[in-house]
Amino acid sequence: MKIVFIQTGGTIDKDYPHKTKGWAFEFGEPATHRILEKLNPSFEYEVLTSCQKDSLDVTAKDRAKLADLIQNHKGNKFIITHGTDTMMETASFLREHIKNKLIIITGSMLPERFSNSEAPINLGCAIATANLREKGVFIAMHGIVKPDTEIRRNLETGKYY
Amino acid sequence: MKIVFIQTGGTIDKDYPHKTKGWAFEFGEPATHRILEKLNPSFEYEVLTSCQKDSLDVTAKDRAKLADLIQNHKGNKFIITHGTDTMMETASFLREHIKNKLIIITGSMLPERFSNSEAPINLGCAIATANLREKGVFIAMHGIVKPDTEIRRNLETGKYY
Amino acid sequence: MKIVFIQTGGTIDKDYPHKTKGWAFEFGEPATHRILEKLNPSFEYEVLTSCQKDSLDVTAKDRAKLADLIQNHKGNKFIITHGTDTMMETASFLREHIKNKLIIITGSMLPERFSNSEAPINLGCAIATANLREKGVFIAMHGIVKPDTEIRRNLETGKYY
Amino acid sequence: MKIVFIQTGGTIDKDYPHKTKGWAFEFGEPATHRILEKLNPSFEYEVLTSCQKDSLDVTAKDRAKLADLIQNHKGNKFIITHGTDTMMETASFLREHIKNKLIIITGSMLPERFSNSEAPINLGCAIATANLREKGVFIAMHGIVKPDTEIRRNLETGKYY
Repeated sequence: MKIVFIQTGGTIDKDYPHKTKGWAFEFGEPATHRILEKLNPSFEYEVLTSCQKDSLDVTAKDRAKLADLIQNHKGNKFIITHGTDTMMETASFLREHIKNKLIIITGSMLPERFSNSEAPINLGCAIATANLREKGVFIAMHGIVKPDTEIRRNLETGKYY
Repeated sequence: MKIVFIQTGGTIDKDYPHKTKGWAFEFGEPATHRILEKLNPSFEYEVLTSCQKDSLDVTAKDRAKLADLIQNHKGNKFIITHGTDTMMETASFLREHIKNKLIIITGSMLPERFSNSEAPINLGCAIATANLREKGVFIAMHGIVKPDTEIRRNLETGKYY
Repeated sequence: MKIVFIQTGGTIDKDYPHKTKGWAFEFGEPATHRILEKLNPSFEYEVLTSCQKDSLDVTAKDRAKLADLIQNHKGNKFIITHGTDTMMETASFLREHIKNKLIIITGSMLPERFSNSEAPINLGCAIATANLREKGVFIAMHGIVKPDTEIRRNLETGKYY
Repeated sequence: MKIVFIQTGGTIDKDYPHKTKGWAFEFGEPATHRILEKLNPSFEYEVLTSCQKDSLDVTAKDRAKLADLIQNHKGNKFIITHGTDTMMETASFLREHIKNKLIIITGSMLPERFSNSEAPINLGCAIATANLREKGVFIAMHGIVKPDTEIRRNLETGKYY
């Protein structure tokens, strides 16, 4: 099995490159690298970057670029790390444009840099889905893995269910 | 969805209650509690303890007790945290004795207390499997999820594949 | 020995209470609580809050309030957690207004919530200073502890020396 | 300022190089390296190893070797990471054999690898002591920094005070 991980930005990848005169909160290297280093996985993988944005800033053009990247890649199983606010929009777009590939979208509520982040658990959920499914578009958040057409979000708490 | 987590011991739950005169390395509260607190899951769950042992010390009697606990529980989806050295023996035993339930065995190479532990990723893999399967016995380690009859282990590196 | 810890805000206390529709990066409970829980200290202490601000936003009024809090407190040893950009201004103000008490200012370049934060090391430096000095105003950052009149900062790297 | 860090073993440096067939709990690379990487210190330093032992196993010969290492080193400020059970014996030995140098002994109750370890705080205490003292033998544990002749230990709780 080979998994292609694609960074698009979102909370999971937020870092804090602070020097002087105020603070910056910027996107860094994909958190996926740090998580996979801990996992020491038995599968093959590569980690790509499509964009580095808050998900509210992801545009139709960004989604088209992401779809092209997936479509033109020889791999069949993709895990997209993504901001949590527009996961379903991106999932819906990919479902319409990509056939016969497996796409799992995940992210996290706290940056992976935080010691109390759930990012490693979420990425684990996405990885297991790559083991157990062959095609379709899934979202993995809050311990729930469902096709994007079935998952819902509580807009009060931010929790997917 | 409801998941029943069962602690049996193993590296994942090793803690270090050090005071004076040498050190002790003992099993503590299930690491599952700390991981689920980070996840803030949308599924229902409970966490039970069947035993607290290194997996090389798990006996036929321990496995029978575990099977009874699962068989007599009204739940259908179980995640067993277990030492890594005899996961396949326990899986094989449970497969023979439990029908029509889903059992996923996981654990970790480093104690969950370690900041570089892969335990949260592995538990994430197990949780996604609980979402995507209805019955059978699975092992989730090193980013691989397979029925216990298909998974293998490299005895040099300790890695499942 | 008793130490009074006072929160004023700054990077050390930044948290990320994310729900939906963008992210917020807010000041939470003093990180000092989490650090002292790990330390399990042999000294007595209390943790107070004077303000919760980025240090570039700390005003003369905020500094006067902080000085009053210290002056009117019966304790003699104070550790102030503070944003890194105006530590020296606050130190200078306190040195002019408070006599016969020990004041140590510290903070961190990364939020204590980050797993790679140096906040626990810096607070350790401040705590040792509380053990070894009786009065004066000190800054503890980057492994350097000096009176505020002697410490310098490299404005390129942000490092105190 | 330059600080020479010397590893002797103890809980702080315990690691868990687990593969198959039981677990090993061994001494790894000095935890000091990982802590100093977070600190990004403004002082110069080097990290040496004298031995890698549980402190109950440290012998007179080990202490003599450590004293020789310090005596023959051109540095003046030394931080020794050490197991917690015989810190005072090592401190007493060094005080008798080394004059005109500063020696600070520290360690931790939980391995630095643990996410809830107090090792970074303790090393911070030792580093501040290196800033504020010029000679003598000190122990830094549980937020207390005192000459080895003044510090005490509660043998019930393991806490220095």
